[in-house]
Amino acid sequence: MVNLLKNDRLLKALLRQPVDVTPVWMMRQAGRYLPEYREVRQQAGDFMSLCKNPELACEVTLQPLRRFDLDAAILFSDILTIPDAMGLGLYFTEGEGPRFMHPITTHQQVLQLPIPDPEQELRYVPDAVRLIRKNLNGSVPLIGFAGSPWTLATYMVEGGPSKTYNKIKTLMYQQPATLHLLLDKLAKAIIVYLSAQIAAGVQVIMLFDTWGGVLTTPDYQEFSLNYMKQILLALPKESEGRELPKILFTKQGGNWLESMATAGCEGVGLDWTIDIGQAKSRIGAQVALQGNMDPALLFAKPERIEQEVARILESFGHGSGHVFNLGHGIQPTTPIEHVKIFIDAVHRLSAQYH
Amino acid sequence: MVNLLKNDRLLKALLRQPVDVTPVWMMRQAGRYLPEYREVRQQAGDFMSLCKNPELACEVTLQPLRRFDLDAAILFSDILTIPDAMGLGLYFTEGEGPRFMHPITTHQQVLQLPIPDPEQELRYVPDAVRLIRKNLNGSVPLIGFAGSPWTLATYMVEGGPSKTYNKIKTLMYQQPATLHLLLDKLAKAIIVYLSAQIAAGVQVIMLFDTWGGVLTTPDYQEFSLNYMKQILLALPKESEGRELPKILFTKQGGNWLESMATAGCEGVGLDWTIDIGQAKSRIGAQVALQGNMDPALLFAKPERIEQEVARILESFGHGSGHVFNLGHGIQPTTPIEHVKIFIDAVHRLSAQYH
Repeated sequence: MVNLLKNDRLLKALLRQPVDVTPVWMMRQAGRYLPEYREVRQQAGDFMSLCKNPELACEVTLQPLRRFDLDAAILFSDILTIPDAMGLGLYFTEGEGPRFMHPITTHQQVLQLPIPDPEQELRYVPDAVRLIRKNLNGSVPLIGFAGSPWTLATYMVEGGPSKTYNKIKTLMYQQPATLHLLLDKLAKAIIVYLSAQIAAGVQVIMLFDTWGGVLTTPDYQEFSLNYMKQILLALPKESEGRELPKILFTKQGGNWLESMATAGCEGVGLDWTIDIGQAKSRIGAQVALQGNMDPALLFAKPERIEQEVARILESFGHGSGHVFNLGHGIQPTTPIEHVKIFIDAVHRLSAQYH
Repeated sequence: MVNLLKNDRLLKALLRQPVDVTPVWMMRQAGRYLPEYREVRQQAGDFMSLCKNPELACEVTLQPLRRFDLDAAILFSDILTIPDAMGLGLYFTEGEGPRFMHPITTHQQVLQLPIPDPEQELRYVPDAVRLIRKNLNGSVPLIGFAGSPWTLATYMVEGGPSKTYNKIKTLMYQQPATLHLLLDKLAKAIIVYLSAQIAAGVQVIMLFDTWGGVLTTPDYQEFSLNYMKQILLALPKESEGRELPKILFTKQGGNWLESMATAGCEGVGLDWTIDIGQAKSRIGAQVALQGNMDPALLFAKPERIEQEVARILESFGHGSGHVFNLGHGIQPTTPIEHVKIFIDAVHRLSAQYH
């Protein structure tokens, strides 16, 4: 299987092995900024129907690779598939994001939450992985992912969008044992879920900790990072005879890079607010870094985009260990031609650093 | 005048001079969590009518001091008084926050923006300051404030709430000269505005950079911090024969503490995501630190609140240079009795560190 991967820059960069140019992919690269995505999305009906249809999920996963010289595919799915399979009744409201019909409010509810079987209730996910791998045909590696336990718990307890996270924080401060029980169940569910993704063929794992950044330092350690560590340590170290790199991304986690770097991951994702050179001097000896251009830069003129790519490459400096990415998901109104300029600039301008 | 200030802990702590206990106040301490505030607010009609009525603004400024043993009063006002006086037509929508009827979209508009005279169009602000000082009668110092130029520009260009700040960032990346012109005008307007607050009697200044944290490191320096420096350096060093301390607060600014500490302020405000002990070891030799309890802790049980106060005090450690505060504004649904527990705990538990 190893020799079948034509472009393995991503795997090599995550393991800090030499590469010819810096690999690049984009969070939410299969998404609404692409007209062909919007077409499939309309065909599928709602967002979750698209996630649950392996053929369509495969199709949208591959779409950005047809347009751009990307160094990875990422499984098209959502971090909330697990709570959905646990029976919380996920639905999406236009412009407001995800909501649950049955948010968590009691200890009893947490006790009764099932751990979904990824080859049963979540079978559409490994099915999509198998189909995507077949269609990728060894061109680039496929990234699998899950949300962090803290992030999933935040959605499950808040039930909908929040600016202040009062419900989950009140639970955390008033009934920490209930929250720990929930996080522990989620960690177990994520371990079997990601293991199934790996068995089905994903070659890199990424953990999205979208809401870890709203915590204090000790609470981040206790309620978010600890559970991500459990997951990272429980996952297989290899797959298909090759090392399986894992990326840990806490949005707004700049204060905690050192503890993220020792959590058992090969790569740490950076949002755009931290200087990647500074991050490299703090943790670059232990892990690869992924990031970190502000997605809003894709609204700038081509010269300014290239200037920013050059600045970030220069800040990281020479050598491997950098996976270029945006610091957050690409936005739906992003001009497509700017994406091509961005991706090509990373490859063209990074050669001198390798 | 100096001898008239009965409680000057705040001023001393900001200048890192010895104090008996750690001073404490809360961002948005005059606010919706108080029933007496809600009553005055209803009497005033809308939020801006309350800001523009010096007698009522004075009344709500004093309300929290009647309930709690606070070491400072903060002028009741809003950071958007300046763009409102510039003619942008500020209004508030329920639950969605501030909006402008005439957001900035062109260079021409920026050219034509007037710099409001604080004793004319904004006279209600220094009038409120004079009235509050008279009513405080030397009990505690009065804090004046303004939003940072970047933060005001963000509201003025976005025109309403945003998650991604695409409008201001597109302006920043496509027409930086227009944005610099706007920021320069805002800095000038803020300098005369804060100078008028000082002349009217505020004894401490705080700059709120609510949205600086959404920028990359070089953009933060160029578009936010530089203009805050201009303001800090232009303001008087003393007032009423006493040093006038200035506090700089960039929410989510943990990555940039070192550059904030050398911007010309005496104190740096911290949100709750950074460890205050770590912040002290980074910049505590240069400035005082203000913060940094998560406002959501006020929803916890009394023991947990006291435990968190103790943790933060222990993290800062011995000596002066700490102003206890929340890491962000107190929330409207906060239980009042928890506020008293919090304030009293700071005084009681901090004595051993002084």
